[in-house]
Amino acid sequence: MQLLKDKIIKEGQALSSTVLKVDTFLNHQIDPLLMKEIGHEFATRFSDEVITKVLTIESSGIAPSTMLGLEIGAPVVFARKRKSLTLSDNLYTSQVHSFTKNVTSDIAVSRDFLNADDNIIIIDDFLANGEAVKGLLDIAAQAGAHVVGVGIVIEKGFQDGGKKLREQGVRIESLAIVESLEEGKVTFVEEETK
Amino acid sequence: MQLLKDKIIKEGQALSSTVLKVDTFLNHQIDPLLMKEIGHEFATRFSDEVITKVLTIESSGIAPSTMLGLEIGAPVVFARKRKSLTLSDNLYTSQVHSFTKNVTSDIAVSRDFLNADDNIIIIDDFLANGEAVKGLLDIAAQAGAHVVGVGIVIEKGFQDGGKKLREQGVRIESLAIVESLEEGKVTFVEEETK
Repeated sequence: MQLLKDKIIKEGQALSSTVLKVDTFLNHQIDPLLMKEIGHEFATRFSDEVITKVLTIESSGIAPSTMLGLEIGAPVVFARKRKSLTLSDNLYTSQVHSFTKNVTSDIAVSRDFLNADDNIIIIDDFLANGEAVKGLLDIAAQAGAHVVGVGIVIEKGFQDGGKKLREQGVRIESLAIVESLEEGKVTFVEEETK
Repeated sequence: MQLLKDKIIKEGQALSSTVLKVDTFLNHQIDPLLMKEIGHEFATRFSDEVITKVLTIESSGIAPSTMLGLEIGAPVVFARKRKSLTLSDNLYTSQVHSFTKNVTSDIAVSRDFLNADDNIIIIDDFLANGEAVKGLLDIAAQAGAHVVGVGIVIEKGFQDGGKKLREQGVRIESLAIVESLEEGKVTFVEEETK
């Protein structure tokens, strides 16, 4: 997605060979118009599928997911990273390890919002080691739901999460695949794989 | 906002005299079309103001804020509830106590995204004791920014956060003000105060 890649080149900061900071439009400050375009792009790429629910994880997945949900007319469910007191014990749970933050979080989704009739698209801001997506796939499997695929805003192509998931037969659509962050310079994989 | 009140009556659950669960459309599952209407309603109520930035707090404030930001053409900044490793120390910080969860969280916003030239609208899903809004007002004050007002999706009118903030001269626009949750029944304050 050229608009996204241009934004990453203009505003992204390669803080190290593995950390890309995109706080100006995705992770802390949000560019709503770009989120709308991202939602539209996901909808277009998955237009061959009937999607009943968008599944994501708080917090940075929420804005692009909401725009996608608006476009395709489907509700969004975001997994919570810890249990809230107003959620009862009626939960699907899994675990997600963040290598960036070096913490393992419990994630949870109410059983009220996913079931065996659902055709789910999983959305997240980043795909690196694939931990968050694996956790969400686990939750979808617990619900007996069908996952049509995974939409990722930025994939770190130099980490192996995407490769492993594709080898398992998961359809991944990444709007920008970063090839390298070496020497503070962001380069992209030319063709997005499907 | 009648559409919102109807949704609360239809899907909200008064779990106790103080806890209203709206997980089906706002706090866990999100209704994107309702979020769009909510964004539009905030834009309409504050159409007399020039707004340069929407300030909210993760996670449930993000969806309505992004829709508002899209409508008025302003970026959204969401305060994080704890420090992320990809954020440097260049932060405005404050503290927010949640009576529902009985925890005090540090909240943080990068200094890169708020400054003295900003006209900020603060958005949140709930207003009860006013703790989250006070934390966001504190952060806006640290930035030297002007706050044009606060937009709230659901105010608990039987708790005193809204009253105290209005007494301090803060403009609060709440789209639904709950009068009571007694006996499992949700009732609203008839006229939304300004």
